[in-house]
Amino acid sequence: MAARGKVYLIGAGPGAQDLITLRGARLLAQADVVLHDALVTDEMLELCPRAEKILVGKRCGQLSTAQQFINKQMIDNALKFPLVVRLKGGDPMLFGRADEELRALEEAGIEVEVVPGITTALAAAAASKQPLTKRGVARSVAFFTSSTAPEHAEHDAIPDTDTLVQYMGGREAIATAERLLAQGRHADTPVVVIENCSRPDQHIRRLTIASLAQGLGAAHGPVLVMLGDAMKTRAHQHNDEAQLPSAVQQLSA
Amino acid sequence: MAARGKVYLIGAGPGAQDLITLRGARLLAQADVVLHDALVTDEMLELCPRAEKILVGKRCGQLSTAQQFINKQMIDNALKFPLVVRLKGGDPMLFGRADEELRALEEAGIEVEVVPGITTALAAAAASKQPLTKRGVARSVAFFTSSTAPEHAEHDAIPDTDTLVQYMGGREAIATAERLLAQGRHADTPVVVIENCSRPDQHIRRLTIASLAQGLGAAHGPVLVMLGDAMKTRAHQHNDEAQLPSAVQQLSA
Repeated sequence: MAARGKVYLIGAGPGAQDLITLRGARLLAQADVVLHDALVTDEMLELCPRAEKILVGKRCGQLSTAQQFINKQMIDNALKFPLVVRLKGGDPMLFGRADEELRALEEAGIEVEVVPGITTALAAAAASKQPLTKRGVARSVAFFTSSTAPEHAEHDAIPDTDTLVQYMGGREAIATAERLLAQGRHADTPVVVIENCSRPDQHIRRLTIASLAQGLGAAHGPVLVMLGDAMKTRAHQHNDEAQLPSAVQQLSA
Repeated sequence: MAARGKVYLIGAGPGAQDLITLRGARLLAQADVVLHDALVTDEMLELCPRAEKILVGKRCGQLSTAQQFINKQMIDNALKFPLVVRLKGGDPMLFGRADEELRALEEAGIEVEVVPGITTALAAAAASKQPLTKRGVARSVAFFTSSTAPEHAEHDAIPDTDTLVQYMGGREAIATAERLLAQGRHADTPVVVIENCSRPDQHIRRLTIASLAQGLGAAHGPVLVMLGDAMKTRAHQHNDEAQLPSAVQQLSA
């Protein structure tokens, strides 16, 4: 029993290698095995050169079967190796299905620790220079996602917070906009849409709920939709959104 | 004009030195000046040994005056030094008053970039092993704070998301619990309260809304209140909450 390894659920952040935490990076460098999902970038995996890297959790396919397989792989590896990392895009505790994985590890008697990651909403706020809260304008923010079961999605009210962030909101853009209008949000409410946040192909669009209702077209990566009066641009705001954040350029030079 | 420096608004995360991002840590190491608030820990400031460190943004006192003074210090320093960091506890874009600072820098023609940080809710979810979302149980989460103006606080509805996280919620615990009960949340809804998240004196309490209504007593650091059915403990959950996360111990050894 004492020989059992430990599993770390680590948030990789939105994609850029330097947006993982120091703790996450240090654990990756020591890891024996890294089980990662498809949202984890190649540059992130460069941080664990000595680990065996296993791609799990494909984005399509039978989700529950895939989850059981991931759980089994975590447990099997923890019985063989001292330091196993389960690396997830964003943060493990927000839309990361951590509950299922924690439960499986605990039932198997495997020690587990969670290391937080930068959730995409925070990286998107930084990249677009749009704070999620704003004194006198926005004092609450909700993160939500549509149900994977479409029959539920229609009945769910969208939260009533000042700022709203929809994860994986690309495909449902039209439905989201229609529900927001039906719930009384103004058609001219500013919307910021970020695709591939923090990555070389990051793309930021500034819309309104009215234009969101026209749809977003095909996406080539994860899409985040942020909206509310906090998304209004400032008078002298300089948006250099076609460029990579300069910190990435400087630091990789 | 070309000699003007650049200002980075950087999120330090909840306190532990190794919960800042790699990008934030690298910029701190290069910084000429670091303007930090009182929530930034001493161990975090060890990451910028060559910078002049200036404590700004006291937690009490006249907030608007303090903000103008911080804005002036950022601008003055950016006119003198190439790399100025404004270091904030948590994430700059969430309850961080980034709007005022971005606006002031942009109006002064100073280049600015934002580096996200781990907001306390994510670190608290990790430390308590309570995911903020949970399939079939919690698909939305709101982060909110009470108004600094008490006459507003009474009229604000608390968001209707599955999971709720109140920042700086220690003092208003009784009022929050009463409002939640009045809005129809069950008295036995599980609540997790974290004080000094990620720090050596981190303290986690597990309550219900009914016990939250008795108040939390005196706090000795920042308090975060999380609640909703996602806060229910799991059957085999192992809570080692009196201890520091072992990653901190391992990595600092």
